[in-house]
Amino acid sequence: MAKLGILDIGTNSIHLVLAEVEPDFSYKIVDRLKDITRLGDGAFVARRLSDSAVARGLEVIRNLVRLARNRGFERIEAVATSAVREARNGGQFLEQIARETGLTVRVITGSEEARLIFLGVQHSMTLTERPILVVDVGGGSVELMAGNREGLLRGCSLKLGAIRLKDLYLHRNPNSKSMQKQMRALIRTQLEEAFKDFRRTRFERIVATSGMAGNLAEVIHLERTGRPLPQLNLATVARKDLEAIEARLGRSGPKERLAIPGIDPKRADTLFPAATVLRMVLELCEAEELIISDKAIREGVIYDFIQRHREKIKAEQEIPDVRRRNVIGLARRCQVPLDHGDHVAKLALQLFDQTRAVHGYGRKEREWLEYAALLHDVGYMINPRQHHKHTYYLIKHSDLSGFQSEEIEVIANVARYHRRSHPQKKHGSFGALSGTIRRVIEILSAMLRVADGLDRSHFAVVRSLQVRLGATITISLQTAGDVELELWAAKGRADLLEKVLGRKVQFVKIRAKGAAA
Amino acid sequence: MAKLGILDIGTNSIHLVLAEVEPDFSYKIVDRLKDITRLGDGAFVARRLSDSAVARGLEVIRNLVRLARNRGFERIEAVATSAVREARNGGQFLEQIARETGLTVRVITGSEEARLIFLGVQHSMTLTERPILVVDVGGGSVELMAGNREGLLRGCSLKLGAIRLKDLYLHRNPNSKSMQKQMRALIRTQLEEAFKDFRRTRFERIVATSGMAGNLAEVIHLERTGRPLPQLNLATVARKDLEAIEARLGRSGPKERLAIPGIDPKRADTLFPAATVLRMVLELCEAEELIISDKAIREGVIYDFIQRHREKIKAEQEIPDVRRRNVIGLARRCQVPLDHGDHVAKLALQLFDQTRAVHGYGRKEREWLEYAALLHDVGYMINPRQHHKHTYYLIKHSDLSGFQSEEIEVIANVARYHRRSHPQKKHGSFGALSGTIRRVIEILSAMLRVADGLDRSHFAVVRSLQVRLGATITISLQTAGDVELELWAAKGRADLLEKVLGRKVQFVKIRAKGAAA
Repeated sequence: MAKLGILDIGTNSIHLVLAEVEPDFSYKIVDRLKDITRLGDGAFVARRLSDSAVARGLEVIRNLVRLARNRGFERIEAVATSAVREARNGGQFLEQIARETGLTVRVITGSEEARLIFLGVQHSMTLTERPILVVDVGGGSVELMAGNREGLLRGCSLKLGAIRLKDLYLHRNPNSKSMQKQMRALIRTQLEEAFKDFRRTRFERIVATSGMAGNLAEVIHLERTGRPLPQLNLATVARKDLEAIEARLGRSGPKERLAIPGIDPKRADTLFPAATVLRMVLELCEAEELIISDKAIREGVIYDFIQRHREKIKAEQEIPDVRRRNVIGLARRCQVPLDHGDHVAKLALQLFDQTRAVHGYGRKEREWLEYAALLHDVGYMINPRQHHKHTYYLIKHSDLSGFQSEEIEVIANVARYHRRSHPQKKHGSFGALSGTIRRVIEILSAMLRVADGLDRSHFAVVRSLQVRLGATITISLQTAGDVELELWAAKGRADLLEKVLGRKVQFVKIRAKGAAA
Repeated sequence: MAKLGILDIGTNSIHLVLAEVEPDFSYKIVDRLKDITRLGDGAFVARRLSDSAVARGLEVIRNLVRLARNRGFERIEAVATSAVREARNGGQFLEQIARETGLTVRVITGSEEARLIFLGVQHSMTLTERPILVVDVGGGSVELMAGNREGLLRGCSLKLGAIRLKDLYLHRNPNSKSMQKQMRALIRTQLEEAFKDFRRTRFERIVATSGMAGNLAEVIHLERTGRPLPQLNLATVARKDLEAIEARLGRSGPKERLAIPGIDPKRADTLFPAATVLRMVLELCEAEELIISDKAIREGVIYDFIQRHREKIKAEQEIPDVRRRNVIGLARRCQVPLDHGDHVAKLALQLFDQTRAVHGYGRKEREWLEYAALLHDVGYMINPRQHHKHTYYLIKHSDLSGFQSEEIEVIANVARYHRRSHPQKKHGSFGALSGTIRRVIEILSAMLRVADGLDRSHFAVVRSLQVRLGATITISLQTAGDVELELWAAKGRADLLEKVLGRKVQFVKIRAKGAAA
């Protein structure tokens, strides 16, 4: 299965989700880590990430990335939302992340955020054709999404995130009645404006995502039942309970808030604006309850990744060996027909195995030959003319992980010399190599040239070959159909093999048993 | 519409079909040319194409290719069948064709031939779920194909072509009873062997393709009605009429044959073995008539081409300009997201148009900038690291027809310098250019760098820009959403623009009207 890490750099929290994608393109979460880093604290007033937030953020990201990699999650999809998007020093912050972890972070817009969140929710609850409303209260923004089982119908992003509202209205004096009133007026205006695009009283359900909504649900449940919430996902929150907790938070000072059972201390100052947004959404939609979904943008990123990388994921299931998978991945990316490469590899390896007494090479060189054969025509993707040189360039510069650079040099050179001029010291990239390696390239490319000639028409009419080593090397061909063209091509390409093995090479035809023309 | 030439190098005839593929992927034949070159005369005995056959073949191919190109058919799919496939000098012949016409000929096997012929027939008559048998009597081989409306069920290729049989049995003494008997025995044995794989008495119809069958149908119709066949396609031939003409051909000498009304003089010696094959097929299938189809391998090659090149054909319909089409084709082949390239091109051209008073460039340079912008990220296909250099390589070496080599050099360099180091004379491929061209590259890449920065997050949040030229160049950005990241990136990439235009550059945000976050 394919391992995928999702790093979500939010305004309030930084999340790492480790997922394993299954052969049927479903996924399994193997771990979730969260740090309420509050990267956006103060950022919406100053229009920049504070130095301490940057330092906290970098440390958390470094640790999470290290942890993911230690557990074998090399592929990490990283996204950042409003705090980074809106800060003047967001770009520098991303540069620092890239420098320290090698990670390229995608900064996404509010509408992309809405799309991804809905994608996460859509796959986690049974939807009908009747639209639901999803509301995600984050630190910087609030996303509203209307959609049904077909997908997102309409989404928007509002600048009503809980850290933003707290910083703008409640930072200095959280209990100021007039500031609370101003905040409610802003929320109402923006929600009413946004709901113009929705048929707001027609939703089958109102679903709330995000940690803010989850913590509110926990606090309410604990207060009502005296017991912790048995399961967050699909828990319901009644509007009247939400109104009650909103009122209580609104009149409490910082210390009283911290004393509320179940409250997350790192959210004590942001739950009030979050509750206000959620309560108003219910009011405007004339709904009596919220349903909590524990899915969010992370799950959306996983689904999105799976959709965009089906081919790659499939390859990973099919070809567990990373070296082979990367070789075949490159061949596929270059859209070369795999049949011909496969067949040439087969013939080349038969030649290799049966001339081992002469060349004496082993498993390592055999693998290089096979990969060079699979890739020998990738240069066609750039241009059929001089395609052997383009093949060299593509193999050399594509990120074939799993190989040492010398190995890539050998494979690229062997593939390059599958046609046209023989390896020559005056060719820069060949001449720079050691004598031992040059010799390997000569011998392997000599075999590849013959094997490629033996599939000249690309119809695999030479089924297999048998080598007899003598003063002359006799290569007997089991054929299915006419192979005059193949014989002609192989003879014309056997000179390097004769040179490197120091013997004449001749070809003999044997018709394969039971083969049709 | 897309123009496609098919060159079919058969044992008996060489055909050129000129077809125009329509936007709905149907096609229209605009011309057909045929020469009964008899490339295979003598080839099956000697196992090589005779010198005179090679000379005739080359002349015909040269003329047909020239004709196709003169009529604007640049794309020619060329296939060769058994004569070339089985001759020891077939490879040389193909090399000569390549040298003289630039054409790469695909040599196909018997089973591929069967597949292609059935593809042609399948699309030319109404089939049901009941299988039909198609028989194609060529010069070198006979293909038998069973299939229904779903496609080919079973196909095989037998070495019973009319030129081959004539050369093996009737060359010296066409009327030798014993040789005719031997020939019939061979045909019967091979057909019976082949029919083991077919349920031979269950075919709904027996369809015959190829010129041999067509000529037999004409001769028979003329004899029965005194009038020429009004339409070849779907004409029927009764088994008893076939038996009669076979008998007549079998007892006639060369002169008498030529006197048979309607007979094609170039087929006078091959119609007899062809008639024998067809008659025996009817007997073995217990069928009373043949139906002629005038479709054949050429039509199959057209369908096959359309299936394999749908994307390319679509592009041709959508993008009539060859330069733009090739640029977009390269971008698609490299699988770069086109949205980002499109948007960067749009912004770069706005910058170009509104700074014209400073740089003074015109339509030509504008087009180069646009194409460099569309292609600037193609190098990602090879490796995200150093992708600007891979972009240069891909643009430079891909066959971007429609451009002069200097133009390709400019586009490749502008795209290469979209990030990282500025153009420098010490960079080989830049330093070798003239001062004028170097200046163009500097100015265009300076604009591309800024435009790329302005779409840093790839979400087109900078919708458009307006330039005010003064002591400072002020670039006002119409934005939809937060653009801090874009501003940061563009500022960091404006230094080359400041240098080449000799003025400071500053950016100003303007929120686009009606834009949502």
